[in-house]
Amino acid sequence: METKFEFAKSLIKEAGALVKESMKNPLEIASKSQFDDLVTNVDQATQQFLVEQIKLYYPNDFILAEEGHLLHPIDEGNVWVLDPIDGTVNFVSQGQDFAIMLAYYEAGVGQFGIIYNLMDDQLYAGGGVFPVTLNGQELSPYKDKPISQFLIAANSGMYAHNTMGVGELIKQSLGLRVYGSAGISMSRVLEGKLMAYFSCIYPWDYAAASIMGESLGYVTLTMTGEHPDFRTRQAIMFVPKDKLTLIQSVVNEHS
Amino acid sequence: METKFEFAKSLIKEAGALVKESMKNPLEIASKSQFDDLVTNVDQATQQFLVEQIKLYYPNDFILAEEGHLLHPIDEGNVWVLDPIDGTVNFVSQGQDFAIMLAYYEAGVGQFGIIYNLMDDQLYAGGGVFPVTLNGQELSPYKDKPISQFLIAANSGMYAHNTMGVGELIKQSLGLRVYGSAGISMSRVLEGKLMAYFSCIYPWDYAAASIMGESLGYVTLTMTGEHPDFRTRQAIMFVPKDKLTLIQSVVNEHS
Repeated sequence: METKFEFAKSLIKEAGALVKESMKNPLEIASKSQFDDLVTNVDQATQQFLVEQIKLYYPNDFILAEEGHLLHPIDEGNVWVLDPIDGTVNFVSQGQDFAIMLAYYEAGVGQFGIIYNLMDDQLYAGGGVFPVTLNGQELSPYKDKPISQFLIAANSGMYAHNTMGVGELIKQSLGLRVYGSAGISMSRVLEGKLMAYFSCIYPWDYAAASIMGESLGYVTLTMTGEHPDFRTRQAIMFVPKDKLTLIQSVVNEHS
Repeated sequence: METKFEFAKSLIKEAGALVKESMKNPLEIASKSQFDDLVTNVDQATQQFLVEQIKLYYPNDFILAEEGHLLHPIDEGNVWVLDPIDGTVNFVSQGQDFAIMLAYYEAGVGQFGIIYNLMDDQLYAGGGVFPVTLNGQELSPYKDKPISQFLIAANSGMYAHNTMGVGELIKQSLGLRVYGSAGISMSRVLEGKLMAYFSCIYPWDYAAASIMGESLGYVTLTMTGEHPDFRTRQAIMFVPKDKLTLIQSVVNEHS
């Protein structure tokens, strides 16, 4: 597993260098489901690079990835979950606050996750048998304090419409942050800078953080308390285990 | 004016170094108007340092500043507008996404503004007779494109309650961002990464960006289209002049 973890960290760094390089050229931008759901030639090229490299070194492994409907079931064999660019709107509009994400599962069990915020050169990696680190420095597990001393990141719609009590929870906190990238938001949770993250997201958005989070005292659940399905887009919470009872009591009041 | 501008840039860098140094020690945190309106010993020490240095070199100048009710009228004499730490909640919770801000006025006319995002070592400076630069690199003026190709930063409450149409405007855009610091948000507008910023803020929150923005094609107005009063907290828009008609038509529909 050590070899695979080292391979994955090198691979994501290499992909990051390619993305940075490609930012010197004009982007080709297309819309997917609606005008604000963007994809670029760089998302596609980056995924292709990641998939090719994984298949080259591990030809029997499978892929679950954002672009092109590579939707292998999470619990069958060795599965790599990829997001070539998480936060594509930020990538296009701001050239910052986006991430490459990679997670590796065997028979449905998370082995390690990696989030690479390439513009800030921040590599979050670990989980499973590996300590969770930021650029090699071990991250501390969650330390409990009152919700009134924490910020919370969320999908702006879930906040505005108080979907399943998310607005209510955030009102009890120091406030809302909206960064436009699950990877950026969840890596700030892993660092203890935010208490939690709530959003409607896909497997490749939550896989890496959920594996790392498990080692640091966080759980990744649907808003109704189930394990995510690793197939569809779901309303997901990434929260400290110590705050789960409090959070679920507010959520249940609004369900 | 050149000397004063150079003095101000050195001063804010020095203040930034002091803030960074002070982050090695535990913070003393207090609440002001409510539990999420925080001030720390570092806000106070930083303001004191800035005021002392300005008074030492320019004893006849006046101060308009966040802490301690230093509320000199903007249009009387030479006035320095200071925010020792803009984004105190981020400073306390995240140790990033906060800024020191400085603006200089003579008889009510903005001469230059400076925003220093010290954790990312990004210094935005200029306006008046000076070009607007980021770390010495000149920033481009606003380039118009459709609102559907821009992100917008705003106060989360104005978005959620569609206050004066802010929610409506954001629905026409690529989406909302909430960073929790006027300085961080407005500097991203100056860079063209965001189209606009809407929030309920004080003079020290908008002074620096408004001077720089004027040189790059942006205007700073109250939501009802007046010049800000430089005294009280007001609902403020920081928007491209080219988009003012569109924005005001949406705002007026919701007033």
